Amino acid sequence: MTYCCGVLVRDGLVMIADTRTNAGLDNISTFRKLHIFEEPGHHVLGLASAGNLSVTQSVVSLLHEGVEDHEAGERHQLRECRTMFQAAQLVGNAIRQVHRVNGAVMEQSSVNFDVSFLLGGQIAGGPLRLFMIYSAGNFIECTQDTPFLQIGEHKYGKPVLDRAVVYDMEIAEALKSSLISMDSTMRSNLGVGLPIDVLVVTPDTLRSELAFRIEPGEPYFHDLRERWSAALRAAHASIPRPPYLKDVRTHAMTEV
Amino acid sequence: MTYCCGVLVRDGLVMIADTRTNAGLDNISTFRKLHIFEEPGHHVLGLASAGNLSVTQSVVSLLHEGVEDHEAGERHQLRECRTMFQAAQLVGNAIRQVHRVNGAVMEQSSVNFDVSFLLGGQIAGGPLRLFMIYSAGNFIECTQDTPFLQIGEHKYGKPVLDRAVVYDMEIAEALKSSLISMDSTMRSNLGVGLPIDVLVVTPDTLRSELAFRIEPGEPYFHDLRERWSAALRAAHASIPRPPYLKDVRTHAMTEV
Repeated sequence: MTYCCGVLVRDGLVMIADTRTNAGLDNISTFRKLHIFEEPGHHVLGLASAGNLSVTQSVVSLLHEGVEDHEAGERHQLRECRTMFQAAQLVGNAIRQVHRVNGAVMEQSSVNFDVSFLLGGQIAGGPLRLFMIYSAGNFIECTQDTPFLQIGEHKYGKPVLDRAVVYDMEIAEALKSSLISMDSTMRSNLGVGLPIDVLVVTPDTLRSELAFRIEPGEPYFHDLRERWSAALRAAHASIPRPPYLKDVRTHAMTEV
Repeated sequence: MTYCCGVLVRDGLVMIADTRTNAGLDNISTFRKLHIFEEPGHHVLGLASAGNLSVTQSVVSLLHEGVEDHEAGERHQLRECRTMFQAAQLVGNAIRQVHRVNGAVMEQSSVNFDVSFLLGGQIAGGPLRLFMIYSAGNFIECTQDTPFLQIGEHKYGKPVLDRAVVYDMEIAEALKSSLISMDSTMRSNLGVGLPIDVLVVTPDTLRSELAFRIEPGEPYFHDLRERWSAALRAAHASIPRPPYLKDVRTHAMTEV
């Protein structure tokens, strides 16, 4: 499994991805799923992937080497795109190119051709944007109303984002929310695990503000996990008990 | 969609279920999914269901009218079971009986025969127990190590239970945790909604301690939702910001 999320607020973009892959529970490995394409001053792009690893790695390789454009008889690399919309289209084209080669045979072998990507970043001359691209190569864009997108094992970490993330929050708060969301996912699903890759991009800098790997034992994330657990326990304790149960003799009471 | 959970602690059993059903987003209705079978002094059973409504309703009807036992040439009702294990077996047999009649035709029509049940309660002479029964009629039992089971849209509400629920907690706390878990699910999935049915059974009483429907606007649950949101916001705010971003010029800072 995989969990990746992207948060796009006024102050910038956060992308995080775990690194755990599994082909069955007895075959667990660490693979980078957050890929950074960066030429400072020209473009900075983060591409996070979920789904079949052979497909997602091929897509990343094609984006480096060039995706075929049959009509024009050309190949296009991600670095040549002039807008984020064109970059999202190119990722979609790369997925379709892999599908043309492998899709039918994978399906015959009952292997799902099931991938999704988050593409975020900025290309000189345009704004910072964030897209989610599906298996068929179609995509949606993140907007201010719901300033985050998730791929992979997204449900465990969604309640935290639903409550906390707004377009006006500061970038450090957006990163904090993303890490809490990752923590919730890791606690409930063993298929998502450390290390975690993090990319932060602030508007109009055209370089990565932060491109960082959180390894097991990293002090801040360890502390965040402990504090969040303690704060949730305190939040839980602060809520009054249901009044529906009036005279229940509980085990604790009978011991008194 | 559906969300139901059962919590079995030393002090008793809590079962909760939402009531929203949908056949497409444009066909949303309210149906009871938590069914209570009770003869005070003899047995008290709660049966919560998720999945195809035509199947789950047929299973409930069979448990009232009698499930066929082909080998013995008899029919058995849930009220006749002498142990909770036999009751779980009977629910499994009822699912298989519905599958024999409808399974093949449903599959031909591309309708999933996909159901699951939680069965909890106590029968005179035995302990309070909780089971989860799958589409094939097989089942697992809740144990002290993980004293809860969930069916339906379970992922959103699992992190809350993973952190809060332990076998030694009091029954009122178990009910509170269940309701917080339901709130998290309702916030992130429109397919789960009010009213919520609640059953509480304490050991060796052989009657329902509480069989209650939480309607929209019910004061305690409304207050719980408000308080939990506020407490989560406070918990979020109490966590220090990531130290990875040192000199980012944020929008908020540039406004100063």
